[in-house]
Amino acid sequence: MPRFKLTIEYDGTPYVGFQRQANGPSVQAELEDALAKLKAGPIVVRGAGRTDTGVHATGQVIHIDLDRDWSADKLRDALNFHLKPAPVAAIEVEIVAPDFDSRFSAKARHYLYRIIDRRAPLAVELNRAWHVPTRLDVEAMDRAAKILVGHHDFTTFRSAHCQSKSPLKTLDRLDAVRVGVDLIEIRASARSFLHNQVRSMVGSIKLVAEGKWTDDDLRGALEAADRTRCGAVAPSAGLYLTQVDY
Amino acid sequence: MPRFKLTIEYDGTPYVGFQRQANGPSVQAELEDALAKLKAGPIVVRGAGRTDTGVHATGQVIHIDLDRDWSADKLRDALNFHLKPAPVAAIEVEIVAPDFDSRFSAKARHYLYRIIDRRAPLAVELNRAWHVPTRLDVEAMDRAAKILVGHHDFTTFRSAHCQSKSPLKTLDRLDAVRVGVDLIEIRASARSFLHNQVRSMVGSIKLVAEGKWTDDDLRGALEAADRTRCGAVAPSAGLYLTQVDY
Repeated sequence: MPRFKLTIEYDGTPYVGFQRQANGPSVQAELEDALAKLKAGPIVVRGAGRTDTGVHATGQVIHIDLDRDWSADKLRDALNFHLKPAPVAAIEVEIVAPDFDSRFSAKARHYLYRIIDRRAPLAVELNRAWHVPTRLDVEAMDRAAKILVGHHDFTTFRSAHCQSKSPLKTLDRLDAVRVGVDLIEIRASARSFLHNQVRSMVGSIKLVAEGKWTDDDLRGALEAADRTRCGAVAPSAGLYLTQVDY
Repeated sequence: MPRFKLTIEYDGTPYVGFQRQANGPSVQAELEDALAKLKAGPIVVRGAGRTDTGVHATGQVIHIDLDRDWSADKLRDALNFHLKPAPVAAIEVEIVAPDFDSRFSAKARHYLYRIIDRRAPLAVELNRAWHVPTRLDVEAMDRAAKILVGHHDFTTFRSAHCQSKSPLKTLDRLDAVRVGVDLIEIRASARSFLHNQVRSMVGSIKLVAEGKWTDDDLRGALEAADRTRCGAVAPSAGLYLTQVDY
């Protein structure tokens, strides 16, 4: 009974999130329904990161055990066949050790957050980026981001629904760069994140990029360890889980 | 009565094309319906390029006359307000000379064609690129593209429905480059194109990139000036009208 690691891509727009919920379609349900056509018995898949409603992934990871003598490529193609026409695809499948766990073996998670700062609403990029109608100072944003890098109490940047035992996390990377004319890419990396941490941090460094907050305002918000000091949380459509390291 | 030049972006997925048609929603109808809320009397907008069903634009151009003393910015914002929630937006508006014509004043048109060549189906990029499941040789594709650059009879690469008087066109640019791991960007520029010319050329140079055609096969297809010698036309979802020069 080999264990498989599957790297999953999805457009999060039509989903209530990765995790199965009573109130609407989820990526987990799409995957479990498709896998049920390949495998008898109960199937529960768990993502390396539990992405929220409308959040995308190009590198989510799950694992499954399969009682079939299949190659990794055969599983990928069969799963993708049954996933259609859902905007969910297995982009890479490999056989791993029996103790591999998509969630608990993860050593680092990487997210991308996309902002488009232009006056006009989004059309081609609708639901795929945060539309900010005023021009942002990306150098100020990147400089402010560095205040958050390191080991901190991230209570300010943590959803009230966060189930993590501790608000202490080590943020390894938070960079903001402009790509072309009006796209800003923010990349965040850590061993693990609190619930809504990336979107909370992005919402706050965006205030610095607008000139509404100084670096000291951001530093004060972090040090206060107080959720009410967070900037407005950035919308889910801009967020992508891009990679999980093991 | 100032004349305005409007640069328009749209996701072509839900539309039968730019041009108004009886059989479904069009970008033209979205624009005319929104403009009707700003302007009395008959409104007909004409695109610099008539994109087909499912073809996108980041730089389509139209012009309108408006009997109001509005700044370009005010028109852009008012039009975008009335366009919502359609995936169509005016990204730039400027006042132009009264003899400016979006179609007839155009000096060059630029298209981008996006291919993603990977085994897995598309999810985040669904309807935004051509999914080719086998790895393509982009260097061979780019070399073959150069055979088509220049002044030629493009009958082979012209839809049977093309209304252009002559099949003679000058193709100024056709480049294929790989961007990152599995994205291929093909850029095409000319004063004007025949109907389906870009998608027909892409479909044919893709055969060279797969090793199914040699350079000589492509040259022979061009020189035959015979529509039946064209490779399968590339799907509309990969095509973007990116810029029109005046």
